[in-house]
Amino acid sequence: MEKVSENRSFEGVQGVYKHMSKITNCEMTFAVYLPPAAKFGPVPCLWWLSGLTCTHENAMTKAGAQGWAAQEGLALVFPDTSPRGEGVANDDAYDLGQGAGFYVDATEEPWKPHFQMRSYIVDELTGLVASEFPIETDRMGVSGHSMGGHGAITLALSNPELFRSLSAFAPIAHPTASDWGRKQLGAYLGADESAWAPHDSTLLLRETGWDGDILVDQGASDQFLDLLKPEALAGALAETRTPSVFRMQTGYDHSYYFVASFMEDHVRWHAERL
Amino acid sequence: MEKVSENRSFEGVQGVYKHMSKITNCEMTFAVYLPPAAKFGPVPCLWWLSGLTCTHENAMTKAGAQGWAAQEGLALVFPDTSPRGEGVANDDAYDLGQGAGFYVDATEEPWKPHFQMRSYIVDELTGLVASEFPIETDRMGVSGHSMGGHGAITLALSNPELFRSLSAFAPIAHPTASDWGRKQLGAYLGADESAWAPHDSTLLLRETGWDGDILVDQGASDQFLDLLKPEALAGALAETRTPSVFRMQTGYDHSYYFVASFMEDHVRWHAERL
Repeated sequence: MEKVSENRSFEGVQGVYKHMSKITNCEMTFAVYLPPAAKFGPVPCLWWLSGLTCTHENAMTKAGAQGWAAQEGLALVFPDTSPRGEGVANDDAYDLGQGAGFYVDATEEPWKPHFQMRSYIVDELTGLVASEFPIETDRMGVSGHSMGGHGAITLALSNPELFRSLSAFAPIAHPTASDWGRKQLGAYLGADESAWAPHDSTLLLRETGWDGDILVDQGASDQFLDLLKPEALAGALAETRTPSVFRMQTGYDHSYYFVASFMEDHVRWHAERL
Repeated sequence: MEKVSENRSFEGVQGVYKHMSKITNCEMTFAVYLPPAAKFGPVPCLWWLSGLTCTHENAMTKAGAQGWAAQEGLALVFPDTSPRGEGVANDDAYDLGQGAGFYVDATEEPWKPHFQMRSYIVDELTGLVASEFPIETDRMGVSGHSMGGHGAITLALSNPELFRSLSAFAPIAHPTASDWGRKQLGAYLGADESAWAPHDSTLLLRETGWDGDILVDQGASDQFLDLLKPEALAGALAETRTPSVFRMQTGYDHSYYFVASFMEDHVRWHAERL
């Protein structure tokens, strides 16, 4: 692991690091925020998964999470959203390939050699972060925005031993029924739609449930409501009687202005549960 | 004035607008944040002046000011840092020309036709903002970062009837004695250094004083300490017995991670005084 930068932030440290991943087979960049409490011993940790076109950087600079994390003594980890580099497959569209890993392990060419974001996060980056930073690996939660909200819910429901707390902002909630999903799941996982279901929050919640509670914020003026399909997830949460708070937020759109507006609530949500 | 974008943020509105300026003779972009309290009537306003290479956007996205401004019922205005466009003079260096207006009115060619940032802000943009938004023009303060901290102090000290409260982050504090200053003041104002003094916070404070108090935060690990010369301003504040809080913040650098870390204190500082 190599340090790219470290900046003091709210009495803690906002760092950016890179390493060669054995799972994505390329160099990966990620960011970690350590709160001031981490100087005195291991701290719980919130993983943040970002959306389409994002890198590790967007939430780190625009979500305003560090101040609340500092108050709550919570570390933050911001992975990248895909493998990257010249030797890595890509597509001209903004919503496929680099910047659009969708938090799945690709089984199809040309994506398979590098696009293993699910395993990269769950199996490799959690281990690296645990070995390099003072983080309590049995006290980790996950949140994210848009494609990253999809990632947060699907990764948590699939790995409840890893992620103990869960929230999401404007998640892609039902990708098997959306143009934000069918295209990517088809490309990465192939035409057999039965392989897609474990990567659909709405379907997965009905299948596996979640042994905790979930906080979801969704802007009521989100320009992508048709693609996100929040009603599918809201319905599934109610049908499955999952303890949850699903908030339609009047007037908010899909931007980081929306995310930043409710970041305090999400950081406190995770801190109370970890 | 034309709307570029508006996003809901902390129950208020973060907007970006553009207009043809009669003073800089080109199209100018600026941002305004209106807190939720502005729905019910005019609110006080904090002007934010940004640093070298910045536009209206940097502080708007990275400083985390909106949440605190929403709580305090304070509007925020983020002007650009220079005139811009194809017909506007420029320089290959990052610290001269577009993105580096230095908050002065140029008297020298080729800068004179457009680089009138001081008059643009004080005489034109304040009027436009007052006519277009519910802002109390007799309750305005100013802050800024780096070149913008220089702008905040020099504009406030020169226009105390306009700006009633004042703070700065890592200001270029003594530009007549720094490579961040001598180059730009020479280019924009000419070789006669007597014309520079009104644009040097340290010299101006000794000359005119300030009929209020000043909050200054400076990172002790700022990579540009030699150029900023905080000791000159700290000395002048003490010598002139100006009510002030000058904080050297251990471990912080020059970045927006530093700015965001102390934004709450600055927004509250202005709100208490407006």
